[in-house]
Amino acid sequence: MTSEFAAVAGRSRDAAVILRTLTADRKNRGLAAIAARLDKDRERIVAANDLDVRAARDSGTAAGLIDRLTLTDERLSEIIAAIDVVIELPDPVGQVVRGYRLPNGLDVRQVRVPMGVVGMIYEARPNVTVDAAALCLKSGNAVLLRGSSSAARTNAALVAAMRQALSDEGLPPDAVQAVPGTGHDTVDTLITARGQVDVVIPRGGADLINRVVTGAQVPVIETGVGNCHVYVDAAADPRKAVDIVVNAKTQRPSVCNAAETLLVHADLADTLFPELARALVARGVTLHVDPPAARALAAADIAGEPATDVDWAAEYYSLDIAVALVPDLDAALQHIRRWSSGHTEAIVSDSAAAIGAFLAGVDSAAVAVNASTRFTDGGELGFGAEIGISTQKLHARGPMALPELTTTTFVITGDGHIRA
Amino acid sequence: MTSEFAAVAGRSRDAAVILRTLTADRKNRGLAAIAARLDKDRERIVAANDLDVRAARDSGTAAGLIDRLTLTDERLSEIIAAIDVVIELPDPVGQVVRGYRLPNGLDVRQVRVPMGVVGMIYEARPNVTVDAAALCLKSGNAVLLRGSSSAARTNAALVAAMRQALSDEGLPPDAVQAVPGTGHDTVDTLITARGQVDVVIPRGGADLINRVVTGAQVPVIETGVGNCHVYVDAAADPRKAVDIVVNAKTQRPSVCNAAETLLVHADLADTLFPELARALVARGVTLHVDPPAARALAAADIAGEPATDVDWAAEYYSLDIAVALVPDLDAALQHIRRWSSGHTEAIVSDSAAAIGAFLAGVDSAAVAVNASTRFTDGGELGFGAEIGISTQKLHARGPMALPELTTTTFVITGDGHIRA
Repeated sequence: MTSEFAAVAGRSRDAAVILRTLTADRKNRGLAAIAARLDKDRERIVAANDLDVRAARDSGTAAGLIDRLTLTDERLSEIIAAIDVVIELPDPVGQVVRGYRLPNGLDVRQVRVPMGVVGMIYEARPNVTVDAAALCLKSGNAVLLRGSSSAARTNAALVAAMRQALSDEGLPPDAVQAVPGTGHDTVDTLITARGQVDVVIPRGGADLINRVVTGAQVPVIETGVGNCHVYVDAAADPRKAVDIVVNAKTQRPSVCNAAETLLVHADLADTLFPELARALVARGVTLHVDPPAARALAAADIAGEPATDVDWAAEYYSLDIAVALVPDLDAALQHIRRWSSGHTEAIVSDSAAAIGAFLAGVDSAAVAVNASTRFTDGGELGFGAEIGISTQKLHARGPMALPELTTTTFVITGDGHIRA
Repeated sequence: MTSEFAAVAGRSRDAAVILRTLTADRKNRGLAAIAARLDKDRERIVAANDLDVRAARDSGTAAGLIDRLTLTDERLSEIIAAIDVVIELPDPVGQVVRGYRLPNGLDVRQVRVPMGVVGMIYEARPNVTVDAAALCLKSGNAVLLRGSSSAARTNAALVAAMRQALSDEGLPPDAVQAVPGTGHDTVDTLITARGQVDVVIPRGGADLINRVVTGAQVPVIETGVGNCHVYVDAAADPRKAVDIVVNAKTQRPSVCNAAETLLVHADLADTLFPELARALVARGVTLHVDPPAARALAAADIAGEPATDVDWAAEYYSLDIAVALVPDLDAALQHIRRWSSGHTEAIVSDSAAAIGAFLAGVDSAAVAVNASTRFTDGGELGFGAEIGISTQKLHARGPMALPELTTTTFVITGDGHIRA
């Protein structure tokens, strides 16, 4: 660990000591000040982003990444509006999770308290810089941000504005800090800072997540990568099946809760399956199919590419889908157990028995029953915000918002109680 | 990873697929069968333990460790009785943590489900072998046990008995398995088995915990080490203070929730402090004191050793205590923030303001108010059992029992719902 990082992390820790004692009103005033300051500093922020975007273009960055990096005036307005949503959310700190009196008269309360210092590691999207800071502040945590070096100027402008707002409001500016430096080694420094950082949340592609999870000594919440399956059962309602499959694959293919594999009961090979395939192809989707599906498609004059293990494992994030005909629900469950990343699986069926078996057999963060996989999202589930979607089993699983940024303390109150 | 480990872990995974679907009744029958089988196999188990104990003696193992390793007929009866307690506990699987209907009609339920495969890494106590297996079975998890090599014969006998019982009951024997091999490398294999082991729980000394936490790629729940503080405030009730300090230090000094440091408000230097010191010394406790405490003790003719940083950091687990006189509550909080391991801190005070400031300023798994630190224990808090005491902030903090061995799944039920 560099002494520079140690100094920054120490200031985060000092800020966290203050943050954990703040009332919701004080924190909300800080959030409002941040929103106002970002609004005031629009020109400076957009200009900084312009430099990042130009540099990215000059170095031949892909168009998709440029788009994610770009912070227009309109996008900045959306970021500011999202802060207002966080202000409206209930403060999780102080919530009593469990509370009871023991037979010996001891009062036990398990109370939500902030985590302390949260490390965020993420890629080019500048909105994460503000979203993460707002959610951490509202939950009483100091945040240490490690964004992409391609967004360095943008993030510096955003962080400077937020710190200025906190300072003006009499709150510790070190509640929001950027990790010093932009090299790859700064990730390693952050994820091994045991005792200084309480949890690290990586948000990004599979490579980033994997690097953090395998290298971390600090507790990690793994997020996001999704190889989501839709299983269309023999007892599926055809209309719902077409709607759900098309929505899950095509409504926004680039996100983690989009479907990547379609499993169809073999009984539907000559009936619903061609209809599903046609609906996907009509929306520009390429089908990567197993041999039974290929035979059924050939009989219906629909084109498909042969699927290999690469396809079953793929998170395409594009208008591609892997497709298999399965002899029964059990075969669908086996396929999902082998290939799923544990994000979201959907079943379309009107059979209560099939739905029950699917729920018992699938082990993922979310299961959608007669609904699109796209609902696995903090906003859609009514959380009001989202700091990521956990695909691990520890601490939080699925969409995470404010309560997931807290831990708990047992407060045990007696009257001179001692243990016999 | 060795192919032998991969085969064992694969069988755990297969068992977990079945375990997650079992009713509480089926699991309880399995637990009853285990209890009956352990009772039937008493002689074999005690004989195996006798070989382990002899080998440990022959190799010059310390008396304390020999005691922990020893499994008498009476201790085996206690282990069997603990299974009956687990049978009586409610099954956490299927509990609905949150459930609501969204404005669009989607029904959302967050449901407790088993973790899957739990790795337990522990030291010589043979009771952990059975406790962990029972708690994992009841919570629908397969367990992979990695006990101490010094207890290898005992653990093999216990595991064989448990597997036989499960098999006789028609349940998957691979619900309970030992990690193959006894070398130190087997720990590394277990803690890096990403995708095969869902969580690892280390139980033991600081070295073991540290090795697991820094080397793991699988999510870990850090447990147990405790540098617990008792702060005696200026407004403390003297009688309660003496009772609590003596109980916290001496009732069972070898455990993690025993007190290791006493902080006393300087206003009490000539009054309550000598009384506290005398009560401890009378019970054979050695005081390791800072200069102000040394002066106060000298004035009262009480002996003390000078304390260094080693003492402030120490988890003595013995009849030793570090002692400091602090000018005020804030100084006590600063001391605790610097030196605490985040397990349990206690305050003795009749001042509501002091108690409030202590609760706001301390960031530990548990805070005892006018009560002994010794109450941070799953049994004492009414959990009925305990698989460890988490000192990390992620997932679980403080004593852990059955609910902490589960994760959740969001079940999102619609009627053809798609995202707009």
